Amino acid sequence: MLYIIGLGLGDERDITLRGLEVVKKCHKIYMEVYTSLLSFGLSADGLSKLENLYGKAITLSDREMVEEKADHMLSESRDADVAFLVVGDPFGATTHSDLVVRAKKMGIAVKIVHNASVMNAIGICGLQLYRYGETVSIPFFTETWRPDSFYEKIQRNRMMGLHTLCLLDIRVKEPSLESLCRGRKQYEPPRYMTINTAIEQLLEVEQTREESAYTEETECVGFARLGSEDQMIVAGTMRQLQMIDFGPPLHCLVITGKTHPLEEEMLDFYRCSM
Amino acid sequence: MLYIIGLGLGDERDITLRGLEVVKKCHKIYMEVYTSLLSFGLSADGLSKLENLYGKAITLSDREMVEEKADHMLSESRDADVAFLVVGDPFGATTHSDLVVRAKKMGIAVKIVHNASVMNAIGICGLQLYRYGETVSIPFFTETWRPDSFYEKIQRNRMMGLHTLCLLDIRVKEPSLESLCRGRKQYEPPRYMTINTAIEQLLEVEQTREESAYTEETECVGFARLGSEDQMIVAGTMRQLQMIDFGPPLHCLVITGKTHPLEEEMLDFYRCSM
Repeated sequence: MLYIIGLGLGDERDITLRGLEVVKKCHKIYMEVYTSLLSFGLSADGLSKLENLYGKAITLSDREMVEEKADHMLSESRDADVAFLVVGDPFGATTHSDLVVRAKKMGIAVKIVHNASVMNAIGICGLQLYRYGETVSIPFFTETWRPDSFYEKIQRNRMMGLHTLCLLDIRVKEPSLESLCRGRKQYEPPRYMTINTAIEQLLEVEQTREESAYTEETECVGFARLGSEDQMIVAGTMRQLQMIDFGPPLHCLVITGKTHPLEEEMLDFYRCSM
Repeated sequence: MLYIIGLGLGDERDITLRGLEVVKKCHKIYMEVYTSLLSFGLSADGLSKLENLYGKAITLSDREMVEEKADHMLSESRDADVAFLVVGDPFGATTHSDLVVRAKKMGIAVKIVHNASVMNAIGICGLQLYRYGETVSIPFFTETWRPDSFYEKIQRNRMMGLHTLCLLDIRVKEPSLESLCRGRKQYEPPRYMTINTAIEQLLEVEQTREESAYTEETECVGFARLGSEDQMIVAGTMRQLQMIDFGPPLHCLVITGKTHPLEEEMLDFYRCSM
């Protein structure tokens, strides 16, 4: 049996009792480091906290492992209980559908243990989850690659009065261009997009398109380290949020649509005072 | 301090370690029964399981209590740690923004403990969460009250290729019309909308509007008791799902937009064989 277990958003204490029970009985434990293993796995300290709690060793599995070497983990799951731990929920911002499909095609049973993900935890700012439109991703712009398909989506959401969750780019274990040319993999240092960079890119696209999907004065909410003890949530205009140092990753950004009075009252608690 | 703690979707084991830690140190524990306390609070058995786990008594608070008598709970929170337990996440399908606003206006600190909610757990069917449009609510139709504002929203979502989560009506502790006339409150038995009723109402509205927002042949996914051990998830057309007995509540329904190949592969595992 393969168990895919959501760890939630904060630290080792955000696993559910159900999740912990399963981990403790599993023969082998893998943990995904690709998306957002900040509080948990990227520091040796975080990892050993988890291992102490579970009473067993964890094999870290990076993006390559999940994409290329998953068959090994899957065949282990055929004869024994294997846990694959993911930050947030197994089907939240990063989904593990491909792993589930592969497992099921191999005849391996899969069970999911749910948890909070960024997709629902953003509710804490007071903007109602049922008033969100399509979620967008903001990728890091490069010299030659500046994809802006998020622009129409935000525009459509705002025209309908809906809020937009912007997931910000994460680059972990990206092979460097140089190393690819030399045929031997070396990796770029991990990069996590800040709210500041996201807003810079958003405004750049608005300046090019000039269709007023949003402006510098559009009300947004910035979230850093959502669900952790030191989370930071600030509501303000794009211009205001661009000036704020939100600290370490992960960041995400919500662009408001039309807000209701109760939503406004909640946002007031997070409003920046500039 | 007021702690609003999400219990997740299944049973008492879906609380997080963080949540359990907080509950154990709280002076007083309230639990909301309004929305969806099925696995937990509506049966005496479920309640005592929770009380055993927490090692203390729980005060059930129904809709009236939350709306009318919250001040009492809030003033208790001024001097002591009070936990308010909710099914799912504190800001999921039912939000508790009003409670947060009232607490903060009284100068009471509020902390949130997140958990899975229906809004993210539906990801398990394989339809990607970032491909959902606005969420709709389907209310019970009566002889004289047949509000259908969900129709345009579903239409818009589907025109953009987006999926739609339909939250189905729950009527718990509704004063009966008769008792309101007599000035003494008596309550209707609780009612939870089934997937069958939801589809019946959806098709009725389509028949009246005739704008082909969806048809009997539109692909949907029905969820019953999502997150519980006995959850039931079936993908099929509205016509197919209408024939299926999904068993006890809670139910919800997703109407698909445009699906991607990986989404289709995942749906295949849940496809009904009619």
